Amino acid sequence: MKLVIASRNSKKVEEISRILGKRLGVEVCSLVEVDESLPEIEEDTDTFQGNAVKKAVIVAAKTGLLCLADDSGLEVFALGGKPGVYSARFAGEHKSDKDNNRKLLELMLNKSDRRARFVCYIALADRDGLVGLVSGQVKGRIAFRPKGKNGFGYDPVFVPYGYDKTFAQLSSGEKDKISHRRRALVKARRMIKDYLVSLDSLPL
Amino acid sequence: MKLVIASRNSKKVEEISRILGKRLGVEVCSLVEVDESLPEIEEDTDTFQGNAVKKAVIVAAKTGLLCLADDSGLEVFALGGKPGVYSARFAGEHKSDKDNNRKLLELMLNKSDRRARFVCYIALADRDGLVGLVSGQVKGRIAFRPKGKNGFGYDPVFVPYGYDKTFAQLSSGEKDKISHRRRALVKARRMIKDYLVSLDSLPL
Repeated sequence: MKLVIASRNSKKVEEISRILGKRLGVEVCSLVEVDESLPEIEEDTDTFQGNAVKKAVIVAAKTGLLCLADDSGLEVFALGGKPGVYSARFAGEHKSDKDNNRKLLELMLNKSDRRARFVCYIALADRDGLVGLVSGQVKGRIAFRPKGKNGFGYDPVFVPYGYDKTFAQLSSGEKDKISHRRRALVKARRMIKDYLVSLDSLPL
Repeated sequence: MKLVIASRNSKKVEEISRILGKRLGVEVCSLVEVDESLPEIEEDTDTFQGNAVKKAVIVAAKTGLLCLADDSGLEVFALGGKPGVYSARFAGEHKSDKDNNRKLLELMLNKSDRRARFVCYIALADRDGLVGLVSGQVKGRIAFRPKGKNGFGYDPVFVPYGYDKTFAQLSSGEKDKISHRRRALVKARRMIKDYLVSLDSLPL
């Protein structure tokens, strides 16, 4: 059975595919492989959960396939949860990760409370609608300046709890072990397994 | 911390409370104890998932508490999934379980495919919105006539796979072990645990 990831980002699809693993019994594919023509789905629901559910349900309905969709971002305590659902466009539309990080560090200049967390929500849907929703998070703090070259997004300014390096200073393997997406995906894996079992029909 | 169950059915609240267990670290209470004045929430979204999510999100927003809401029902293969989301009012509004069972057995009179399943969806929400959604199911077949006195709803006409008794012929302990609600609640328990961990704040 095919499982389509509601994303055109090949790196993300690869990461998800790797964490879900081969023995799950689904063929993971990206939106690009399945339906070139599907228009971009706007992430406009103002919550991570809403965006993930919206993407999963729309893509599953349009393709008829089982679909996994995620939405994730950074929440900073001293900023009341910002950048939150606007993480990717914090400094404005079409701005770079660097711009977003610069804006965040400026807002944090006089803040002694540096606590923050990355959160990830993952929704699963089939042609009949939403199957389930799970989440994962990793707690940490905002660094005083960007450090490291790996990863993307806010990785250079986020120091996970128990570490003294930013996500961008960790190898992708180290980050994968504790990341919010990994933690959500472990739960998503269980959800997909349950779903596949639920499809097995009984003898008449 | 309080966990309110979005139900005024004391039997249901008791069952949920029992399965969640005492060591979860939440104080389970019913909607009656928390907010007498909250109006009945209509289950009008035409999916189990939609109803569960709607109830959880509304009650959490109105009470400010962590809220668990479930929606469940019977799906019969030969009837294209009916009674489904209309399980409780299959024979019409304000009809009895007996009326629903009679209607179902009439529709199944000439059906050799007796396969069916009970499904249960459980949503968790807090004042910020939906936290997660999980599900559980139990497969079986529709009996040719009602049997047994225990349970409620379609229990007298549902024979779980691997058994030769209806749910209503099983003790509540036996039914609890394999029921759709139990299976969803085991997952909900994990979800609540994860949620409580996510609330622990980090040292500054």
